[in-house]
Parts: sequence; C-alpha cells; structure tokens
Amino acid sequence: MTGKKVRRVGILTAGGDCPGLNAVIRAVAKSLMLNHKVEVIGIEDGFEGLIEDRMRVLSYDDVSGILQRGGTILGTSNKADPFAQAILVDGKPVKKDVSAGTIAHVEKWRLDALVCIGGDGSMSISRKLVERGVPVVGVPKTIDNDLFGTDVTFGFDTAASIATDAIDRIHTTAQSHHRVMLVEIMGRTAGWLTISAGIAGGADVIILPEMEYDLNYICEKVAERSRYGKRFSIIAVSEGAKPRGGEVVVSRLVKDSHESIRLGGVSIKLGNDIEDLTGLETRATVLGHLQRGGPPTPNDRILATRFGVGAAALVATGQFNRMVALRGTDIVSVPITEVGGRTRTVPLDHPLLDVAEAVGTALGAKR
Amino acid sequence: MTGKKVRRVGILTAGGDCPGLNAVIRAVAKSLMLNHKVEVIGIEDGFEGLIEDRMRVLSYDDVSGILQRGGTILGTSNKADPFAQAILVDGKPVKKDVSAGTIAHVEKWRLDALVCIGGDGSMSISRKLVERGVPVVGVPKTIDNDLFGTDVTFGFDTAASIATDAIDRIHTTAQSHHRVMLVEIMGRTAGWLTISAGIAGGADVIILPEMEYDLNYICEKVAERSRYGKRFSIIAVSEGAKPRGGEVVVSRLVKDSHESIRLGGVSIKLGNDIEDLTGLETRATVLGHLQRGGPPTPNDRILATRFGVGAAALVATGQFNRMVALRGTDIVSVPITEVGGRTRTVPLDHPLLDVAEAVGTALGAKR
Amino acid sequence: MTGKKVRRVGILTAGGDCPGLNAVIRAVAKSLMLNHKVEVIGIEDGFEGLIEDRMRVLSYDDVSGILQRGGTILGTSNKADPFAQAILVDGKPVKKDVSAGTIAHVEKWRLDALVCIGGDGSMSISRKLVERGVPVVGVPKTIDNDLFGTDVTFGFDTAASIATDAIDRIHTTAQSHHRVMLVEIMGRTAGWLTISAGIAGGADVIILPEMEYDLNYICEKVAERSRYGKRFSIIAVSEGAKPRGGEVVVSRLVKDSHESIRLGGVSIKLGNDIEDLTGLETRATVLGHLQRGGPPTPNDRILATRFGVGAAALVATGQFNRMVALRGTDIVSVPITEVGGRTRTVPLDHPLLDVAEAVGTALGAKR
Amino acid sequence: MTGKKVRRVGILTAGGDCPGLNAVIRAVAKSLMLNHKVEVIGIEDGFEGLIEDRMRVLSYDDVSGILQRGGTILGTSNKADPFAQAILVDGKPVKKDVSAGTIAHVEKWRLDALVCIGGDGSMSISRKLVERGVPVVGVPKTIDNDLFGTDVTFGFDTAASIATDAIDRIHTTAQSHHRVMLVEIMGRTAGWLTISAGIAGGADVIILPEMEYDLNYICEKVAERSRYGKRFSIIAVSEGAKPRGGEVVVSRLVKDSHESIRLGGVSIKLGNDIEDLTGLETRATVLGHLQRGGPPTPNDRILATRFGVGAAALVATGQFNRMVALRGTDIVSVPITEVGGRTRTVPLDHPLLDVAEAVGTALGAKR
Repeated sequence: MTGKKVRRVGILTAGGDCPGLNAVIRAVAKSLMLNHKVEVIGIEDGFEGLIEDRMRVLSYDDVSGILQRGGTILGTSNKADPFAQAILVDGKPVKKDVSAGTIAHVEKWRLDALVCIGGDGSMSISRKLVERGVPVVGVPKTIDNDLFGTDVTFGFDTAASIATDAIDRIHTTAQSHHRVMLVEIMGRTAGWLTISAGIAGGADVIILPEMEYDLNYICEKVAERSRYGKRFSIIAVSEGAKPRGGEVVVSRLVKDSHESIRLGGVSIKLGNDIEDLTGLETRATVLGHLQRGGPPTPNDRILATRFGVGAAALVATGQFNRMVALRGTDIVSVPITEVGGRTRTVPLDHPLLDVAEAVGTALGAKR
Repeated sequence: MTGKKVRRVGILTAGGDCPGLNAVIRAVAKSLMLNHKVEVIGIEDGFEGLIEDRMRVLSYDDVSGILQRGGTILGTSNKADPFAQAILVDGKPVKKDVSAGTIAHVEKWRLDALVCIGGDGSMSISRKLVERGVPVVGVPKTIDNDLFGTDVTFGFDTAASIATDAIDRIHTTAQSHHRVMLVEIMGRTAGWLTISAGIAGGADVIILPEMEYDLNYICEKVAERSRYGKRFSIIAVSEGAKPRGGEVVVSRLVKDSHESIRLGGVSIKLGNDIEDLTGLETRATVLGHLQRGGPPTPNDRILATRFGVGAAALVATGQFNRMVALRGTDIVSVPITEVGGRTRTVPLDHPLLDVAEAVGTALGAKR
Repeated sequence: MTGKKVRRVGILTAGGDCPGLNAVIRAVAKSLMLNHKVEVIGIEDGFEGLIEDRMRVLSYDDVSGILQRGGTILGTSNKADPFAQAILVDGKPVKKDVSAGTIAHVEKWRLDALVCIGGDGSMSISRKLVERGVPVVGVPKTIDNDLFGTDVTFGFDTAASIATDAIDRIHTTAQSHHRVMLVEIMGRTAGWLTISAGIAGGADVIILPEMEYDLNYICEKVAERSRYGKRFSIIAVSEGAKPRGGEVVVSRLVKDSHESIRLGGVSIKLGNDIEDLTGLETRATVLGHLQRGGPPTPNDRILATRFGVGAAALVATGQFNRMVALRGTDIVSVPITEVGGRTRTVPLDHPLLDVAEAVGTALGAKR
Repeated sequence: MTGKKVRRVGILTAGGDCPGLNAVIRAVAKSLMLNHKVEVIGIEDGFEGLIEDRMRVLSYDDVSGILQRGGTILGTSNKADPFAQAILVDGKPVKKDVSAGTIAHVEKWRLDALVCIGGDGSMSISRKLVERGVPVVGVPKTIDNDLFGTDVTFGFDTAASIATDAIDRIHTTAQSHHRVMLVEIMGRTAGWLTISAGIAGGADVIILPEMEYDLNYICEKVAERSRYGKRFSIIAVSEGAKPRGGEVVVSRLVKDSHESIRLGGVSIKLGNDIEDLTGLETRATVLGHLQRGGPPTPNDRILATRFGVGAAALVATGQFNRMVALRGTDIVSVPITEVGGRTRTVPLDHPLLDVAEAVGTALGAKR
C-alpha cells in the first residue's frame, strides 16, 4: 500500500471508555488535515459503525475544543467484532463473520486507511482486517496499562489519579473511625493501577493480582499497626486479586446474558475475612466506573496527543499495520501482529514493589 | 447553670465522619480561648472517650491549620452510648447504662460544659446528659441533611459536590457507550443529597426515598430519550429508594455482628430491572464512603466555622441545652430536646422537585 | 403585554464571563421548549448581537449537555449598549443611540420577549428597552455578588471556591517560607468574595473595600503572630481595598483606549508597605481572570437552573420587566427598575465579620 | 567515609517551595528508620537551620501522614549559604563564610551524613560541604525541571497540572469574549512547564524562553485564527520569554533589597503589543506562586517517594556525594559535582515542539 497517496482516513474508538480518547481523535484529525490535506471520516461506535456503515466526515470544528473532554465524540462499543458479530437468529445471539460487508463499507467510503484506537481486543480485530488487506494504524488504549508493546497507555494516569484521590478521601475517614478501609481498584489481571495509587495514596497494604494474597500476613500487618498506635489501615486491593490457592474474582461490573450486575468481589470478601480474624471494624469501597470517565489529566492529554500525531505520521508515510507506542520517552511503532492477545502484568521484581516495602507498606504476601 | 463563669469546656465529635468536623473544633476552641479565656479539653473518639476517660487539653497549636482538613483530630465512634453501652459479658455484647461513671469523668476534669458535635443519635444522648445535669451545647452534623431543627448542616455541601463530580464522570462514559448509568447516592431515608446532586449533575431521572419509584415510569422515560436520539440516560438514585409496594433496601455499607458487608442495594436491583425491561445496557456505581471523607468545600468550612463560633457564644453566655442551627441565613439556636429522634425528609412539594421536572428530568414516579 | 401568547423568545448573555451562564441558558430554553412550546432564539455576544442582528434558532440539542460547562455558548460582550454604542467616526469612537435599529431586529425576529442574563449595566439597558416597549425578563449575574435585589447571584460560589483553593495553595508556601503572602481577590467595590474566601481559607487578615485599611494595625497583627511563633501570615485583600485616607486602586485587568494593561494594584502596594514596616518577606498573588472561568460548582449550577426556570415561568405567564432573584431560600422576582445603578456592599455589622474576628482573623482596621 | 556504620542522618529542604518535599522527607526518614535503624534529625529552614543550629530528632509519627501535604514540615529558606551568609554589619548586609561553625553543628549532632533536598544553588552548597568532609546525598528539586543530571524532578508534574488547569479556565472566558488571553507560566530560563501546559491546555501559541519570539509572527497566527472564525486565542508564555533582540524580563515575583515587588513582565508587555498590532481585546494572567503550593499530584508523590528511598539507600550503603536522579524509568545517582551551575533547557529539536506544531499550535517564532 505504501507509495499510494493517502486522501481519506477512517478513525474509530473501540472498547471501554478511557480518558484521552477525544485528545487522540483531535490530534490524528488535526495533524492529517493541517499537514497532509487528508480528509478524516469519523466511524461511529467503534467497529459497530464500521459493520453498520455509520460514518460521517469530520470538520476541523468537530475536532476543536475536545482535548480536555472525557469520553469520545465518536462513541464506542465493546462488543462489535466484524469477524464474530453477535446476530440474533430466532431470538438467540449467534456469532457470525460479517467482515466482507464491513470491508465493503471501507471501500464504499474510499478509505485509504483506518486508525483504530483500542485495547487488546481491538488490536486483534485490527490484525485480522490487515490480513484482509485493510491498512490499519493502531493506537493503544487501556486504563489498566496492561497492553503489550507500549510502556504506558493514555488513560492510565487519569485512572491512577482518581484512585489516589479516593484513597485520600478514605484516609480521613479511616483515621477518624480507627477502621480498616479497603479500596478496590481496577486493572483486571494487572496491578499497575493499584501499585501506583497505593504508593501515591500511602496505602498500608497493597494487594496485586500478580501475587496471591496471604490473609494471615495481611492481618498481621494490620494488627502490628494497631500495636504501634496506628489505629487504622488503608488497603489498596486490585479487582483481580486472589487469595493463595483461591480463585480470581474479577469484580468489575459485568453483565452478560447469563449474569446479573455484580459489584465488588474481592474487597467485600477480604474485608469480611479481615474483620473476622482481627475483630477490627472494616469497610470497603469499590471505585468502579468512576475510574474511566471525566477529563484526562495533563499527562494523558500530552501522551494522547503524541500518540495521535504519531499515528497520523504513520498514515501519511504509508507505514501501516503498526501500532504507536511509548518506549522510554520516545514515540515509536510496533507491528500490530505482535500486540494482540498478550498482557503486560507487574513483574514481582519491579522497583515499585521495593519502594512500597521500603516506606513500610506491606504487599499482600511475603515475596 | 447560667451565671457561673465557664472555665473549662469539653468537646467531642460523634457519629459518622463528616467533612467540616475539624473546622467546627477549630472555631469552638479558638473562639473560646481567644475571646473568653476558656480552657478546651478534647475528648477522644466521641462518647467512647467520655465513657473511658480519654481526654486531653487542647492547645492553640492543636487547633491551628486544621480548617481545611477532612476527618476529626479528636477521632469519633458511632457506637458508644453512655446510656446503653455495649459491654462484653461472657463474650456476648450486652447493653449497659454506664452514665454514672461517664458523668464522674466530666466532674473529674471539672468540665463546666460539653460541646457535642453529632447527628440525631448524638443529640439524643446529649439530651439525656442534660437531664442528668450536664450542660451541653450541640452542633448539628450529618452529610444527609436530614437533621431536624436546622435548614442545612455542614458536610452536606461537600457530599453533594462529590456526588455531582461522580455524575459528571459517569456522564462521559454513559454518552460514549449509550448506556443507562445509575449512581447510588447516600442520604438514608432523605433525598436531599440525591435531588441536589441530581439537578447539579443534570441527571435524567432522580429517584428519592420520599417517593416510591415506579419501574415502568422510569423505563418509559429512558426509552423516550432513546426515541429522541439520546442514547444514554443517567439515573441518580438515593440509597433509601424503594419500589412501589417494595421494601427499603438501604445499601450503605453496614456490618453488625450478624451481617456481612454488603455493597449497593437499590442501584443493583434497579439496574437489573431496567436492563430486563428495556434491553439497554446498564451499569451501577455506588459512591459509598467517598462521600464522607476529604477536605470540606469552602461553603462547609464557612458554615462549620459559623456553627463553632455560635456554639462558643452559647457556652460563654451560659445558654446550655441548645443546639446551634441555620435558619435562612442566620445562626440561631434551638432546644436540644426538640431535635433528637425526628428526621427531616424532602417534602413532595419542594421547589427543587419542580425545578428538576421543568428542565426535563423525570422523578421516580408521577407526582 | 400580558395576555398575549408568547411564541418566540430571545435570550442573551451580557457583561463579563461568569460560571453558570450556560446552566441558565439551558434551563430557560429547556423549560420554555418543554413546558410552554416556546421557540428560543439565541442572540450572539450579548447586546452586540441584538444591535448587529446576529441571532439563531436554538435547538434542544444546542442546550443539552452544557450544564457543567464554563463560559456561554452564545458569547458575550461587555461594551455594547444600544443606547450608547461606540461607533467609529473619522477613526474616533463616538457614542451613538442605535436603539431604533436594535428594536427593529426584535420585531423582525418576532420576539415576544427577551431574557437578559447580565449584571448591573445589563439591567440598566434592559430597563431602557422596557421603556421602549420591549418586554424583558432579567436574570442577575455577577461573580462579585454586588447586585441589588437578590441575596446571591450564580457564579459567586464558583469564584469564592477558586479563591479559597488559591489561599490553600498559598498557605503551604507561606508556612514553608515564613512569609507574609497576600492574595488579591476580585469583587470591585464589594468585599463578598474576599470575606467568604478569607474565612474559608483561614486567612489571618481580611481586607475589604468597605473598610479603609489601617497599615499599622495590619502590621501589628502580622508582628503579633510572629511573636506567638506563627512565622507566616496570609492576607486576603479585595481588589477594591484602599488605605485610610487613600484612593481606590481597582487592579482588575483593565484596558481602555487610553490605558495599558495593568495587573495588581493594591496587593503589590500593600505588600511593599508591609515589608518596609515589618522587615518580613512578602509576596503577592493576583488571581485575576482565573476567578471567572471554568465549570460552575454544584451550587452555582443549581442556582443558575433555578433562576432559569424562574425566568421561563415569568415569560410564560407574561410577567415582564422583572428580574428573578433569590430571597432566603426562595426564588422571587423584583422590578428591573429597582435594580440597576445600585450596588450591594458588605455592611460593617455583617455576621461574617464577627465570625472572622471570633476565630482570630483580623480585619483591615479596628471596627 | 564508606564502611563506617551510619547511625544519625540530618535532613534539610532548601530553596523555593515545591510540591512533594514532604513526600521525600517521609520516604527518606521511614526508609532509614525502618530498614537501617538510622536516627533522623530534621534541620529547620534549610541551610539556615544548619548555620543557626536549629535541629530536632524526627519521630516516626512526625513523618507519617505527610505524603499528600504541600510545603515542608522542616521549613525552607532560599537565602542561607554557609559559605556566603548575609550578616548585618553596621546595619548593612555583608556576605561572610560561616562554614566552620556550620560544620561544627554537624559534628555536635554527630550526623554521619546529610540529605539535602534542593535545587541548583543547594547542590552547589552541598558540593562545597563535601569538599570540607561532610558526607552529603542530594535530592533534586525544582518545579522548573531545569536541573542538570536528572530527566525529571518532583514538583514539575504538579506545577504543570496547575498551569494546565488555569489554561482550561481561561479558555472558557477567551471563547465567551472573543479575546486573546495570555497565561504567564513559571520556569525561569527553561520552557518545560510552558511547553507541557501549553500542549495539555491546547494553547494556540506557545512562547518559550529558548526561542526569541517574533511579535509579527504571533500576531499573524492570531489574526489567521480570526479569519477562520476562531475569534479567540490562548497564548501560553513562559516568564523567561523575550522578544527577538530584546531582553529577558523574568517576571517571577522578586524582591531583593533594591527592588520592589513586581508582578508580570513579559505577558503584560506582549499583551499590550498584540492589542496594539491586531486591535483585538487582550488580557493577561500571571499564575505566580499558585504553581508552587498545595498537594502534589500522584505522579509527584511517587517520584518523590522513589527519590527518597533512593537517597536512603545511598546513605545506608555509604555512597556519598551523589545526587539521586531519574534516567528513563530508573532511579540512578550522579556525582553532585556534575550537577551544580548548569541548567537544562528545552532543545529546539525536542519532539514536544514538533507535536505542538503538528496539531496547529504556533511557537513564538518560525523554527
């Protein structure tokens, strides 16, 4: 595809909401419009809009003044998949490959390339589109920061900041009431958000999904603080944390066809266990969707803008099938094929774990 | 007791954490120290410290620089009651009247009066202390704003502000995903926090404990928005809301000896019901303890300071057994005996309900 | 005019930017559209758009999702005046009455009424329009809170909140450096913002325009703190403050044709004077335009919404030539003719002054 | 000195206030106390306390709960220098070397090492102390981020965040009034804060000290926006910016013995020049001390904690005369001797400059 002049580019945001999506859209679009005279087509609701042919031309005005806004002006969806789209057959959802029609929409709109802003699942779909001949540039997105191929993703800084603010608030109540307070933080199977917010918030115990937690060890730590006159403890616990030998209980609000909305798994269970063992009053707070919405932090706006400008440059120079990424302080690109299906978790010898322990914060178990 | 020169005053904070407690402590203490040469004794952990004789002299430095801090430098407890204190007898908690010993501590410390900062329960205890001859001045405290005798209490503005900020964050996600998002807000059986945050956050539906909600009516409203192209809705629901003919499900994190920690009652149930009826994707967020902690808003600092100065004036002029209160824009005082045991809920003809409906926000049922 | 069915209403925002303008626009428009089937015409840039015939029909979508946004979607101007419009004649600005043409635009658009959101100057213009037969409903707007006829105006709470936050930040630096730090706060000739932010921020000295300040008295207070080991002081000073016998030096950033931009008057002068007299290191911060922009607080959103709904009700019931106002906790209306040209300043016996002194805060002079 | 067991360590904070100082103190002290059984002595007000022998033993409680607080519990000063201390001789300040007495205090308190948290000047003093045989470990501090030897310093993220928030607020007012608004940002001779806040805030023009600005170029940019219907512009200007061929006008609030407090240099001048040339209404806001105070962001808390733990490790392992630093994502150390007296400015080929221009933001001149 390289060599051909790019004239029209489609852009979509897929997967869960993430602070900074609008900042990426703005940067990709402004950069393409201003520097490369490329027309930008906004695809609505992620891959759903691509499947259902819902697109519109974006004007310069459409992408102005949105840098600091949360959400995405394009809409998103986290279920659509051209290669396995849920379609109702006799009232039951059946997965069907609708990629041929989807690719026809790309051709109908004469899109020379797609910019896909999304997480792991979206990069997997992008890879398959690439295989069918659709030139794609990927932009990594996940508040969990667990995406393979990039050091950091936009949205993470905002989510960590919201979680830290929550710990700050919880702190005063814990102290006033001499309670053990648990704050359940997102991150799925990766503890990046929890270790960051835990250190920034000065949590007394930090429990990560990467280390099965030891209930007795945690209770000892809490009791030890009591003996030293600290009559409260703050525990930052990752939603993906699991007890030694126990099962993962991801508590993120999930609802599929077979399941009711549930709220808060591990923090509720762990809180009850700690109260039973120590006799100390315990409370849990599940941050949930608060961590995904609202305006991005300045850092996330800058990173999102850098990613967007980087993606536009890849498009303009015909370097497709790559995802922009942060490596150290540099914006680089990696093959999309290397990204999907792998998760970046916190290594147990990560310096942040040492830092936490050095200032007296316990992890969920002895290392 | 009037006429006797007041030389030493005890001060305590009782009940749940509330932004502005330190601002009241500071104002009472500074005002008494500076203007009336009164010594101020800090009682630890509310009535628990009074029962267990844990007190300390407060210096001017102790109460300086705490205006903007959340929590209480004195600590609090929401279980202690000199007239019905839980004491372990053969390992079982038994309620016992320990008021004689408690009052002896008041005498031992030569306290000429007590300033009790607390909610409904604390005012009831204060009333009984008054009956036993202990001069008390009360300061009303509750984030729920449901205390009888005062127009507003400190802490409410901060809690409403946190809940509004949460709705703002949820808004961007609702919009990006075309979801129905529920935000469960504190308030017990009173809807003050929910109606305020609901209007300030621009919620599409506001459900109060004072009006049994009508599931069909709510679903119609949500569906109607869908028809007009608004593919998301925000529902602000009070923790004390209940369905027509249904039962109150207060979801605040409670744990007594017989009960496990539970999280989120009404918003989870209602969310599932809406999803079942409308087929729209639904998510719930329970704000919980986030609403009680952290620094007070400027308004709460001012109100808390006014209450504190007012309480000090009552003490200095020997006007005991009264609670300071806000009436319109004036600080007044009311007999403590009139306060306890009654709750101020939102009247169904309150102007805020009209305002909500005027801008297109539905209430939980037809009025 | 009463009795005639209102079908089309023009709305404009005039004067300086103020948090909550969009919330009023939204409430007026939604309320008129939803409840009274009235078409709403947005007039651009305040009275400038009325003079220059720049208007557009507002759709429901135009006024959705703007509740929490700062600024005004209609634009504003603080110079236009149909009765004394500056027009260039031979390159020089000459004031001219263009009201006939302006009123012709009202007729051309078949506007049955105007809703004017503005301050003192806008209410004066509105009064004159009323005299020419244009039915007007006014909504009071000023962050300074100095408008006659209403207890509070929207925007004030946000401005006070920003000023308090600034004092909080300045506090840590003052303390670390043992400095005297001055924070210059808006308010023109009224001290409402300064007394509120001063109390909420725990300022050590509060200087209002309503009391000529006594430099020696202030320096004594600062020195006294030094003697008691408090090696820093925070001074909240109103931009309109003036020394005893001195002149008003309003420092708000002003630029007219004859004057350069100036920044910070009284705080710079006073800081230098204090440093000269006490030898203590002194710094000044001028908040300036930071106090006018950004999202409104929840309180301001509620008040603005109440004002907007109230204005719509006046329009719908044909009660013209009145301004909505807050009296205690009620929304009322007052004749526009009573409002313009008068300023509401802080009375020297206001309870907030007593409260400040009760907690050890000095005013700028002995009362 | 290596090999000798470290038992007592002094710690001081010197230079201007900076968010995160308390986080470093906490991390150094907790880490030394918990892991190395080292006693920590707090030196008051930076080098002033070392010169005047004002120190105190720090307890674990003293350094608990201070992570999120702005300022420094130890106090600071930015004038004291043991090698050139200003002393009044016949009422005139004379610089005198008082290092012998200062070092005697180190010996008197039996300090095995000093941890000096400070900027460029403090590192220069530290270097001289090292030469006199005092073992020192340095921790870099400057909100300006211009310190040589480390990629980033703590405090920078908070300052950039405050400046971005200010641009956000100014944005709504600029837009409502169709004005050119200038925001003057700290940074001395380095543009790091301005380029970061400028990109994060979506400024239309970013003016750095590293590039002499071209008034005509800036006015063209502003006028061009007007032509495209954007009737406002935001200009982020560094306090150290200077016109082509002009002089540096650092506007930070400075007051030495010969000079009055001044406020705002370059933004006032530039604002007037733009207004004269374009005829557009212009306003300037000088952020000043707001950028230094208040609670650190989560990122700054983490970085400060990492620096503190790193400094404690250097002390414990006897690696003196080094400063901790951030290199990429790693905490490393560099010789203090390499640090002082050099400034790290923004290179004109820095990627952030490309990113700004790619999204349509003009720099102060053509590159």
